[in-house]
Amino acid sequence: MIKVGVVGGTGYTGVELLRLLSCHPGVQLRAITSRGEAGMPVADMFPSLRRRVELKFVTPQDAGLEQCDVVFFATPNGIAMKQAAELVAAGVRVIDLAADFRIRDIAEWEKWYGMTHAAPELVAEAVYGLPEVNRAQIRTARVLANPGCYPTAVQLGFLPLIESGAVELGHLVADAKSGVSGAGRKAEVGALFSEAADSFKAYGVGGHRHLPEIRQGLSGMASGQTVGLTFVPHLTPMIRGIHATLYARLTRELDLQSLYEERFAGEAFVDVMPAGSHPETRSVRGSNLCRIAVHRPQGGDTVVVLSVIDNLVKGAAGQAVQNMNIMFGLDEQLGIDIVPLSP
Amino acid sequence: MIKVGVVGGTGYTGVELLRLLSCHPGVQLRAITSRGEAGMPVADMFPSLRRRVELKFVTPQDAGLEQCDVVFFATPNGIAMKQAAELVAAGVRVIDLAADFRIRDIAEWEKWYGMTHAAPELVAEAVYGLPEVNRAQIRTARVLANPGCYPTAVQLGFLPLIESGAVELGHLVADAKSGVSGAGRKAEVGALFSEAADSFKAYGVGGHRHLPEIRQGLSGMASGQTVGLTFVPHLTPMIRGIHATLYARLTRELDLQSLYEERFAGEAFVDVMPAGSHPETRSVRGSNLCRIAVHRPQGGDTVVVLSVIDNLVKGAAGQAVQNMNIMFGLDEQLGIDIVPLSP
Amino acid sequence: MIKVGVVGGTGYTGVELLRLLSCHPGVQLRAITSRGEAGMPVADMFPSLRRRVELKFVTPQDAGLEQCDVVFFATPNGIAMKQAAELVAAGVRVIDLAADFRIRDIAEWEKWYGMTHAAPELVAEAVYGLPEVNRAQIRTARVLANPGCYPTAVQLGFLPLIESGAVELGHLVADAKSGVSGAGRKAEVGALFSEAADSFKAYGVGGHRHLPEIRQGLSGMASGQTVGLTFVPHLTPMIRGIHATLYARLTRELDLQSLYEERFAGEAFVDVMPAGSHPETRSVRGSNLCRIAVHRPQGGDTVVVLSVIDNLVKGAAGQAVQNMNIMFGLDEQLGIDIVPLSP
Amino acid sequence: MIKVGVVGGTGYTGVELLRLLSCHPGVQLRAITSRGEAGMPVADMFPSLRRRVELKFVTPQDAGLEQCDVVFFATPNGIAMKQAAELVAAGVRVIDLAADFRIRDIAEWEKWYGMTHAAPELVAEAVYGLPEVNRAQIRTARVLANPGCYPTAVQLGFLPLIESGAVELGHLVADAKSGVSGAGRKAEVGALFSEAADSFKAYGVGGHRHLPEIRQGLSGMASGQTVGLTFVPHLTPMIRGIHATLYARLTRELDLQSLYEERFAGEAFVDVMPAGSHPETRSVRGSNLCRIAVHRPQGGDTVVVLSVIDNLVKGAAGQAVQNMNIMFGLDEQLGIDIVPLSP
Repeated sequence: MIKVGVVGGTGYTGVELLRLLSCHPGVQLRAITSRGEAGMPVADMFPSLRRRVELKFVTPQDAGLEQCDVVFFATPNGIAMKQAAELVAAGVRVIDLAADFRIRDIAEWEKWYGMTHAAPELVAEAVYGLPEVNRAQIRTARVLANPGCYPTAVQLGFLPLIESGAVELGHLVADAKSGVSGAGRKAEVGALFSEAADSFKAYGVGGHRHLPEIRQGLSGMASGQTVGLTFVPHLTPMIRGIHATLYARLTRELDLQSLYEERFAGEAFVDVMPAGSHPETRSVRGSNLCRIAVHRPQGGDTVVVLSVIDNLVKGAAGQAVQNMNIMFGLDEQLGIDIVPLSP
Repeated sequence: MIKVGVVGGTGYTGVELLRLLSCHPGVQLRAITSRGEAGMPVADMFPSLRRRVELKFVTPQDAGLEQCDVVFFATPNGIAMKQAAELVAAGVRVIDLAADFRIRDIAEWEKWYGMTHAAPELVAEAVYGLPEVNRAQIRTARVLANPGCYPTAVQLGFLPLIESGAVELGHLVADAKSGVSGAGRKAEVGALFSEAADSFKAYGVGGHRHLPEIRQGLSGMASGQTVGLTFVPHLTPMIRGIHATLYARLTRELDLQSLYEERFAGEAFVDVMPAGSHPETRSVRGSNLCRIAVHRPQGGDTVVVLSVIDNLVKGAAGQAVQNMNIMFGLDEQLGIDIVPLSP
Repeated sequence: MIKVGVVGGTGYTGVELLRLLSCHPGVQLRAITSRGEAGMPVADMFPSLRRRVELKFVTPQDAGLEQCDVVFFATPNGIAMKQAAELVAAGVRVIDLAADFRIRDIAEWEKWYGMTHAAPELVAEAVYGLPEVNRAQIRTARVLANPGCYPTAVQLGFLPLIESGAVELGHLVADAKSGVSGAGRKAEVGALFSEAADSFKAYGVGGHRHLPEIRQGLSGMASGQTVGLTFVPHLTPMIRGIHATLYARLTRELDLQSLYEERFAGEAFVDVMPAGSHPETRSVRGSNLCRIAVHRPQGGDTVVVLSVIDNLVKGAAGQAVQNMNIMFGLDEQLGIDIVPLSP
Repeated sequence: MIKVGVVGGTGYTGVELLRLLSCHPGVQLRAITSRGEAGMPVADMFPSLRRRVELKFVTPQDAGLEQCDVVFFATPNGIAMKQAAELVAAGVRVIDLAADFRIRDIAEWEKWYGMTHAAPELVAEAVYGLPEVNRAQIRTARVLANPGCYPTAVQLGFLPLIESGAVELGHLVADAKSGVSGAGRKAEVGALFSEAADSFKAYGVGGHRHLPEIRQGLSGMASGQTVGLTFVPHLTPMIRGIHATLYARLTRELDLQSLYEERFAGEAFVDVMPAGSHPETRSVRGSNLCRIAVHRPQGGDTVVVLSVIDNLVKGAAGQAVQNMNIMFGLDEQLGIDIVPLSP
């Protein structure tokens, strides 16, 4: 049994991680920390976990995290970078669900996240945990940077296309739509039901923190070539789900459907839908799946890729568990082989 | 492995049954029938089942249902009563998720359902599948009448109270609210998104088919005494979930919290919440749980019980699988021990 | 033109009041105060008011409220009671959309609202602004207590029944459901989209502040007799709307449909639906209407009344404008004669 | 008073038209036809119109449409083209809210709509009713083709940019999101609450009927140059609203904010938001407004335009009334000068 600690279990990625870990047959959940809620039974905050998670929140000091095999950080940005070094030194592997270790260029990270990075040396060794791209490196990672939700949907959607070298890299467009849980479990007016329900809007058009992360990933797929990306996130009135609609211009002919099917053959969590499909976010609700369909409207030179995930699972907690499975040599699907909840 | 057939798998209870059965470790899914969709892969209709259910819909004739150990009817009312006898004669056990075998009084059934009953003799032997009340009889049932969604939430909520004999039976009130999936996957204007979203209404105040079913059940708990019940169902803009708010007048003092906790001690799927709780429907979403809280506002003589279920799970498919587990001597929680999806 | 000031225009009742007042042909909007947002154009906070409301928020000191004919308080509880006396002394009429002047029993008010009342003498003279009950007194009111949202729906629904003297007063039940805007525009976790969407729950079963207000109103209709009421509010995933389902026991025969139609004949904002109807909250969305249907299931002795309003209009801002119209001798429907927005 | 008839008032554009016409001070509503519902009071189908619309549905024969000044067709495609000629011959002006007269190229129309056009000569004289482009021609139109919902949002969003000549015309992208009411009030499984709620999907990526309409309009703005457009519509879980996110590549420098503000100066129903804005669909809910914001992310050469409308108002019924006002020399805002309903 893998001994697991969770730092910061009071947000949506936290409770989702607990949902998955509480049923995982290879895991022993040891501690969940929360400074603010120490002493409170986890299930009092999240009644959906009654009878499943018997632990109480504890302070970080009382958590005994250094005796764990792996510690997940489901914390705001800027926490893991301060605490990871000590854990790594103690032989504990770290999976950060926030953004602290995602961007390799420290200056770029500091510009977008507005703080000084506390552990640049860990960024250098950290592995970006997109298994469909980096599976080999993930196996031995001591510090794993779990990808963002938008970056997961966008990168998986573009992956075969960019690797193929058959699209113009300078003018990619990612028009992405997210459910409101992506905003987290923070008391903010903009995420109130009466603000977000029955309405739709774009946000962060001028620049969103996931832009440099996606750009770095796409550039990696293109052997380091610079990638020009316009990324527009939107808020849609649903709880979970991301739908990325991706646009790229073809520079030569190729069989798109085969390209996608072959690239993802053998991937347990990427489902290339039949030609002509329109995947719905609900078709992956609660599951670790990414479903993708590729279109070429009117046979023109613009490719349209539709990519959907559950932002809290494949876009956060599920992918984190998938990475843990890889890191510890378990079956990659163990504990996260969930049928989507639909309707 | 239990050989299972499903008749009528194209509605919401059907797809939910397939979600549960496809992960059930004791089940081999043999056939899913649909006259209208014969030949179509099930996963083409329900993309959430891609890679999980490889079967195609077949006609009833081609289904080989008589070689199954158990056949679930996820059909409209009036179908199972015509086909069950032949299956039972062939040694197949039948679980009907519709209403054909729920009401013991044939005349009453015919009045509410507007048709002549085709198999009164099976009604006589059928067992009403509310495990928390009838577990012993369920074990040996050949024909199992799976309870309706409202009746499950309302009966479980009233159960300890009525068994206690401490409430006035003549004027019970059940004010119940259901998500829209309770209306089924039928193309009807009233269930359109633009009709049902961002609105709330009562319906069927004059009389709803679940009224006689609930009345029969409550009367059974009261050793056959007649029960006066006002039942008002409402439609609420959510997909899944039933919230029943129950009102009864106390006739003597008793410790309500203990009464409920003791009655449901040992029940895997009924969770009595701490005093003062307000269970949310999302706290059982996707799970087979019923969560209950009991209140006595201002210490008066009116008891208020709050009872929530997922109408498609404990109110339909999940309870059907629970009954199957009991009928075949399996662990009652096998395959349906699911953590609710929240948020 | 009536010179109007609004204190506290940053919540949902505030913006709704501005929507209505900005189109009201008899009103000149003079000032909107907000300490926190002074200097900000109102339409920057509420883009729906762009081109309609040109004012900026001002501090109370700069608002010149004493030169207004009427001042609306769309503030949290406890504000109006401190500021009303000075305005009244200056000849300004005050309409409070909060609860400061609703409960005549000061001790009762202080118990439920947890503060010491700052102006008991104004409570004594304040008029409770339910026009269908108190129209005559409203005309001359200097301080008007605008009713709460639940109290409006529940009182209008019970009104004819209680006035008729034909129901048992000791065991009334009001099972009420509200959209989330009733919780206000406050950053609180419980009102987040991801908490409130796709779920349903009761709250405040042990005791809600609207209980004493409703009890006082019902008692008034019953010539001062004590009324026993069980009031259970629920949160339903929609933005606007209240649906009250009311239960009472008949003590003698009477023609319920006629009773309701006659009592509300001539009322512009109460619509008694035909027998057998089920009013939807969306049928009053954005309007000042209350629609009511009355049922007697199975001809028994339990009456069920269905009463729907838009909580922000008839339940708050619209009723406040209706009261202003009455107070200033205008046509009662002026400026609020709006067709509901449906779908 | 303008004498008005409505053909086909049982869908969402029909009821919305009735909402607007019933309050329009210059209109006398004479007849609403429906073959299927003849004899039924309109307000029985649409309770939101109780006390506002006293008419019953009549058959077309009994409607006396030829005595009207103007007849609106709120019918499925293919109806108006069969009935308009006779009305026009009788001196009645026709406003078609469906697509019969929108596409000037008959062969193109027949390809996308799958029927033979019954009145090509009326197509030749019909005026496309986008007032911000064609106001002069609308004044004298006998047959007015009211634009589609997506085409309104997309064309208004692209208008200044394309007229400026400063963008590459060959690779425009319109990523558009619609509320579910755009699918109409038809009983179809895909538009059920339980299918469309809490989910997001693209549809018609291979080709949508609004594509040729938009392409024709954009080409007109570009003095007839061919325009390459990728149009991807999506379904989002809200009732009303369209959000179009538009992408174009700049070919020279220009001040985008001024370009937009100047182009729409004086337009009552187009609101150019301040630089950096993100208009929400709810900020136009129930109103005839189009709100637009223009962005240039990271100062690159890709322009992003955000354009929102209420699909049932500016995208259908409201624009139809705006066109009627222009055709009959009324104030363009008469009867449709509505403040959006928010929240």
